[in-house]
Amino acid sequence: MATVLCVLYPDPVTGYPPKYARDSIPQLPTQYDGGQGLPSPEAIDFKPGALLGCVSGELGLREYLESQGHKLIVTSDKDGEDSEFEKYLPESDVVISQPFWPAYLSADRIAKAPKLKLALTAGIGSDHTDLDAAMKAGITVAEVTYSNSISVAEHAVMQILNLVRNFVPSHEWAVNGGWNIADCVSRAYDVEGFDVGIIAAGRIGRALAKRLKPFGVHLHYFDTHRLPEEVENELGMTFHDSVENLAENVDIISVHSPLVPATYHLFDEKLINSMRRGSYIVNTARAEIMVRDDVVKALESGQLAGYAGDVWYPQPPAVDHPWRTMPNNAMTPHVSGTTLSAQARYAAGTREVLEDFFASRPLRDEYKIVDGGKLAGTGAASYSTDGNSSPGSTGN
Amino acid sequence: MATVLCVLYPDPVTGYPPKYARDSIPQLPTQYDGGQGLPSPEAIDFKPGALLGCVSGELGLREYLESQGHKLIVTSDKDGEDSEFEKYLPESDVVISQPFWPAYLSADRIAKAPKLKLALTAGIGSDHTDLDAAMKAGITVAEVTYSNSISVAEHAVMQILNLVRNFVPSHEWAVNGGWNIADCVSRAYDVEGFDVGIIAAGRIGRALAKRLKPFGVHLHYFDTHRLPEEVENELGMTFHDSVENLAENVDIISVHSPLVPATYHLFDEKLINSMRRGSYIVNTARAEIMVRDDVVKALESGQLAGYAGDVWYPQPPAVDHPWRTMPNNAMTPHVSGTTLSAQARYAAGTREVLEDFFASRPLRDEYKIVDGGKLAGTGAASYSTDGNSSPGSTGN
Repeated sequence: MATVLCVLYPDPVTGYPPKYARDSIPQLPTQYDGGQGLPSPEAIDFKPGALLGCVSGELGLREYLESQGHKLIVTSDKDGEDSEFEKYLPESDVVISQPFWPAYLSADRIAKAPKLKLALTAGIGSDHTDLDAAMKAGITVAEVTYSNSISVAEHAVMQILNLVRNFVPSHEWAVNGGWNIADCVSRAYDVEGFDVGIIAAGRIGRALAKRLKPFGVHLHYFDTHRLPEEVENELGMTFHDSVENLAENVDIISVHSPLVPATYHLFDEKLINSMRRGSYIVNTARAEIMVRDDVVKALESGQLAGYAGDVWYPQPPAVDHPWRTMPNNAMTPHVSGTTLSAQARYAAGTREVLEDFFASRPLRDEYKIVDGGKLAGTGAASYSTDGNSSPGSTGN
Repeated sequence: MATVLCVLYPDPVTGYPPKYARDSIPQLPTQYDGGQGLPSPEAIDFKPGALLGCVSGELGLREYLESQGHKLIVTSDKDGEDSEFEKYLPESDVVISQPFWPAYLSADRIAKAPKLKLALTAGIGSDHTDLDAAMKAGITVAEVTYSNSISVAEHAVMQILNLVRNFVPSHEWAVNGGWNIADCVSRAYDVEGFDVGIIAAGRIGRALAKRLKPFGVHLHYFDTHRLPEEVENELGMTFHDSVENLAENVDIISVHSPLVPATYHLFDEKLINSMRRGSYIVNTARAEIMVRDDVVKALESGQLAGYAGDVWYPQPPAVDHPWRTMPNNAMTPHVSGTTLSAQARYAAGTREVLEDFFASRPLRDEYKIVDGGKLAGTGAASYSTDGNSSPGSTGN
């Protein structure tokens, strides 16, 4: 009998369950692009398309866990020593969190969790966990790899189009009673013909490239591992051997790297100023890859023509966080990977991992970040840039 | 010596020229997809990337026309008997207008224009001209075919993503200081796996299909002319032999047909109600293909989960037009085909047509809608659905 501590984002202000826009979500093929199978738990107790990622949604886990004799605690109260999260940490065997509402699992907090054996991300991204501390404590760190990669890639395409085509101000003119076409389009371009740079050609970066290719753009990428030539040719991507070289040669950058020491504050004033005047940055990866105020300055000066981020630091950000109101932004709260479509997949994947964990079966290799005291599987590839693991709860 | 009367949208409220976001636009290949050449005037007097579509932009034509001894009149005052448009119509040899700010050329107005020989759309779409009256009066009607087709196709992809992923409310939460993820995503889905229906598989419809294909959607289309089987296979599109059959079998519809009698008020309550609950409609074609208030009702009831239109009737619409504020809309003023990228192409195409016209050379076949008293070229294919030509200035 185990205690599972699950940190999820708060319910909708309009109550739970929400009134759903649609009756179902599409049935997808059983494999992702590349052959990895979709999550395959023995059973699920939720209806795909339901809102599972908030507190009342409980990731669809309560019936399953309680029927097995386990205890499930779900809370959104995650920050500070008096939080519910810290209150239940000492008795928890498993902690589940999501990148959209991250329960920062720092070394200090890991020290307060003597029973903790599994730190699981319902989604992708384990930078909210101090991986070094997890390795030392023998905690397995896992995530539901691929579960929302396509969701994020779609979001990035949307945000590129929204910035380049100047959607936000144009929509505002329409709503507010105007017909100021010249004002809308004096900052609007087609994406066609632009140079687009993708940072990190992992699952999301490659999915983005595949979707952008028919737009007639020129695709470029940087990654610490160069792709095989046949993949480069298939996706039509030109490799650059440094971020600096990439940045100088593109009009749009989309960031898809994990947050590791090598990417922490990578986009500072110097790198941004090396880009063409009026470039665009889309960041659905992690906020701390940017120097916050350098992004604001570049938008104010016009060096950047637009910035669309889905990620912030900390999360939630302060009400007066400057990215909320900086010029020419198309920000979203961290939602790209938690569409109802994505939730169905990562809730199923969470269930799959728990089934394996409680049955003492090995987890799927592709889900493991830290296992047996060292980086493993996906973690070894993604989180070891320059030989360093994730900084966990980093400062700004 | 001729008089050219050019109706363009008003200048930006912030003055002309605007402060441009970027220093240039990309150089495109010399041919569009399919082999048609880009506009090829003998010369241009403007810098590609400039704002040419508003009154002060003058489509970059003044120097050229005046150097040839012609008179250029540019105005945005287009409606009513006291308008500048009606004032100069009697002396005009050529009228140039754009769909974004259409100078409606009705039979009455054609009767007031005895010298008129050429009615040219700087862009695509001649439904603001009464084609029957133009045929009877021997007026040539032409447009810059293909010049902004890709611009519109990009806009349609953006609007599909914005609706399905619930971008507008999510962005508003970010700007307004909240972090209401559950509220954002309780109406957010991935596009992947959805059935997408494209109405009219012309240049724009096919360009949209090409761009949507890698999203893993199921593509369907209706057109009065079925595509060759190899094109269907290449684009992965399933043909439906009626709009009614298409509507019942998709989650998203994107409209790309011209406004002709067969498409006028096509989307009424009955057709919309035949769609799956929570469907989405994107309309970058013409507003009157919809019954205005039936769209509003369907959004209010939840039958439609979203509507993103770039086209309105009339244009400009009233300040209290219900589409400005109906639920779950992602409306834009009519801007999809007038990005700075598109303007460079349609201004060059306008110049090309005028060069040919003044030199008494035949216009490019693909630019002609009405020529020699009958439908011609593109016009014969696009505007003759059910044997009827465009209604011109129609009522609502």
